[in-house]
Amino acid sequence: MGYRAYFEDALGRLKAEKRYRVFVDLERDAEHFPYARWHREDGGVEDVIIWCSNDYLGMGLNPQVIEAMRAAAAKHGVGSGGTRNIAGTNHPLVALETELADLHGKPGCLVFTSGWISNLAAISAIGSLLPDCLILSDAYNHNSMIEGIKRSGAERQIFRHNDLEHLEDLLKAAGRERPKLIAFESLYSMDGDIAPIGKIADLAARYNALTYLDEVHAVGLYGPRGGGIADRDGEMDRIDVIEGTLAKGFGTLGGYVAADTAIIDAVRSYAASFIFTTALSPALAAAAQKAVQMLKGEQGVDLRARHQRQAALTKHALSAAGLPVMANASHIVPVFVGDAERCKAASDMLLARHSIYIQPINYPTVARGTERLRITPSPVHSDGHVAHLVDALVDVWHALDLPFTETDNIVSFPGAAPRVSEEAHCTFPDFKKAAE
Amino acid sequence: MGYRAYFEDALGRLKAEKRYRVFVDLERDAEHFPYARWHREDGGVEDVIIWCSNDYLGMGLNPQVIEAMRAAAAKHGVGSGGTRNIAGTNHPLVALETELADLHGKPGCLVFTSGWISNLAAISAIGSLLPDCLILSDAYNHNSMIEGIKRSGAERQIFRHNDLEHLEDLLKAAGRERPKLIAFESLYSMDGDIAPIGKIADLAARYNALTYLDEVHAVGLYGPRGGGIADRDGEMDRIDVIEGTLAKGFGTLGGYVAADTAIIDAVRSYAASFIFTTALSPALAAAAQKAVQMLKGEQGVDLRARHQRQAALTKHALSAAGLPVMANASHIVPVFVGDAERCKAASDMLLARHSIYIQPINYPTVARGTERLRITPSPVHSDGHVAHLVDALVDVWHALDLPFTETDNIVSFPGAAPRVSEEAHCTFPDFKKAAE
Repeated sequence: MGYRAYFEDALGRLKAEKRYRVFVDLERDAEHFPYARWHREDGGVEDVIIWCSNDYLGMGLNPQVIEAMRAAAAKHGVGSGGTRNIAGTNHPLVALETELADLHGKPGCLVFTSGWISNLAAISAIGSLLPDCLILSDAYNHNSMIEGIKRSGAERQIFRHNDLEHLEDLLKAAGRERPKLIAFESLYSMDGDIAPIGKIADLAARYNALTYLDEVHAVGLYGPRGGGIADRDGEMDRIDVIEGTLAKGFGTLGGYVAADTAIIDAVRSYAASFIFTTALSPALAAAAQKAVQMLKGEQGVDLRARHQRQAALTKHALSAAGLPVMANASHIVPVFVGDAERCKAASDMLLARHSIYIQPINYPTVARGTERLRITPSPVHSDGHVAHLVDALVDVWHALDLPFTETDNIVSFPGAAPRVSEEAHCTFPDFKKAAE
Repeated sequence: MGYRAYFEDALGRLKAEKRYRVFVDLERDAEHFPYARWHREDGGVEDVIIWCSNDYLGMGLNPQVIEAMRAAAAKHGVGSGGTRNIAGTNHPLVALETELADLHGKPGCLVFTSGWISNLAAISAIGSLLPDCLILSDAYNHNSMIEGIKRSGAERQIFRHNDLEHLEDLLKAAGRERPKLIAFESLYSMDGDIAPIGKIADLAARYNALTYLDEVHAVGLYGPRGGGIADRDGEMDRIDVIEGTLAKGFGTLGGYVAADTAIIDAVRSYAASFIFTTALSPALAAAAQKAVQMLKGEQGVDLRARHQRQAALTKHALSAAGLPVMANASHIVPVFVGDAERCKAASDMLLARHSIYIQPINYPTVARGTERLRITPSPVHSDGHVAHLVDALVDVWHALDLPFTETDNIVSFPGAAPRVSEEAHCTFPDFKKAAE
């Protein structure tokens, strides 16, 4: 076809900018997380340690969550069989919505097949139903929120990232009477920084704005019952719409919004991206509900504590070795590189030399010149894994002549930090044996 | 909040137009399909027969498909743990893509978390990457295709539904040189009519246009290996992009496009709705692959024959009873009502009096004045179920004083039609007993 050249040109542009992405074919193993088998493009298979998964707590591989999926699949099948309106509303999905509404202390909840769609559907419906709505959007908002804002047709104004003064200026200029929606995230996933939720809620109350909070990188992970940063901060009841995902802290697939019933009913009734799509499968819904239930209770408290400890330990140990950890108050551990090609090279070398899988984060996911490795320690990464990671990164940093930082920037560790360099390093499981 | 009134007003408008939708909470039972338990809003539970599922072949409840999900969940977990680029590309998903590319005889395939997203992502990426692209869109195209076209930013011209002359006029006017994409469906789900794929491919060749074919209501159901209408017609190699779903004929969840590798790579690399979303879970991918494999072979041939027989029998029996079946050459059985309120009333009465669940299809899913009941017989609906359905609909038609048609419009049945009115009617299983 004569059209091929257009697509090849488009791909060539990405390659020239070093932005062409190669997917890493991983076979996760429920019994050996964070290890996985990497299927190389040449057909070979190697064992690797995953250090960049968003299954932050490993719930996607939790035996109870797996059993919930298996039981629901046996009982109700693997698919829902239709849209929500036409034969697809299944009982486990309705139960999941009740569970999530309770998690966030809201009267209503609506589940979607992805977090991306939940932002597109909810923001576009809300923005289009409020007459002359003005959407005030944090400069660092996720692509899915931006797509929802565009799709709403509402006017958008962008406030500087987490900048309360700028947000207040825009609110003031819009006036109390005009319908306004403040759209922001609780935890920005690439920098790991956290929004001042309470203060934004103060502004919303003062200027009569609705608030829409994306908690996808926080649900399951923060708060006494895993409701997210707003749960931790005691601010859930001051936020109008909380959006979350089932695919990160809860380890499965899908997204949701929790809010007042009138808002939920309006999104349910008006969002084309919700109406015209097949409902989440009962097997996934049951697995997700189990994960949410577990993280609401004691197991959640323990997992969250262990998760925070391993993240803090990783930051501490990497920074103590002079690696340029980008400081933040969350579980995300970004290590600065600042160049697309070298970021890719560091990632490739970690995989080839050290069997460590950390995807390079380049433009457009982050701004050019701020390329980084984004590390996500989980509760199942041991202190030995952390030691192995430190050694590997130091080796790669030397090999690629990447800059080290002053060691007076060491990220503190609560209490006495274990001396990870003296810990036993990780040993790889015998996958072949395990598979037999 | 002062905002509640806006949402309540929006809901009031739907209620005034009789378009407000109430979801029916169904508990499908893998052992008793097409029966299910209906959880009423008052808390009561009743057994019903589902007659409107898009799990057309019952693959979502097939024991081998269920076992594939259960095995993959045990081995690889319930979620993928990341976007395709960041830790989410899992081995069962890669295997599924290979399986689907083979199904359609294309070099490449890309899987999404829904058919809706696959249309949004693929059409928007293709339309935006072709300079000055003109998208020629069938008037009856699905919402997801329309959203993809809008998102592409390309110019759109709509051709009258399945109208080759009109399409040719538009192609001619655009000229050979301008990049053009013809976007259409093989089987339009609400009327059940089928596109002249070969003739559209002829026009595309003559005027140098790309073709994009949505086969979501046909994959698994038509063609020697279940590749859809284009497979049945021997036209797959003449279509540039084939889009399908995993949620209907294949009974699971997700969507995909199959095409040349350059197109797949471009969609993969440029579509924000693909890039920024979590990958399909390995358990779902494994279940879907099993369904595709089964439907490629002997079991598929048998199931498709049985499916077509039950659809033809249903059309024949309903029309012989004077019910206004809207004729078409597919497995969809629309029965005309022509009024939103009476359509809802017929659906409610079928459920209340006869334990039959058929969702009313109203605007905006179909045009006003063409409201209908849309019936989807499956291979597991027996001749007795069909007889039960006929009696129930006749009763409802009398009770609501809906018009019957002349019985010279009887839809023919290949060979000697069984006299379904003399068959034993269906008996409901003892769910409670089965659950113990």
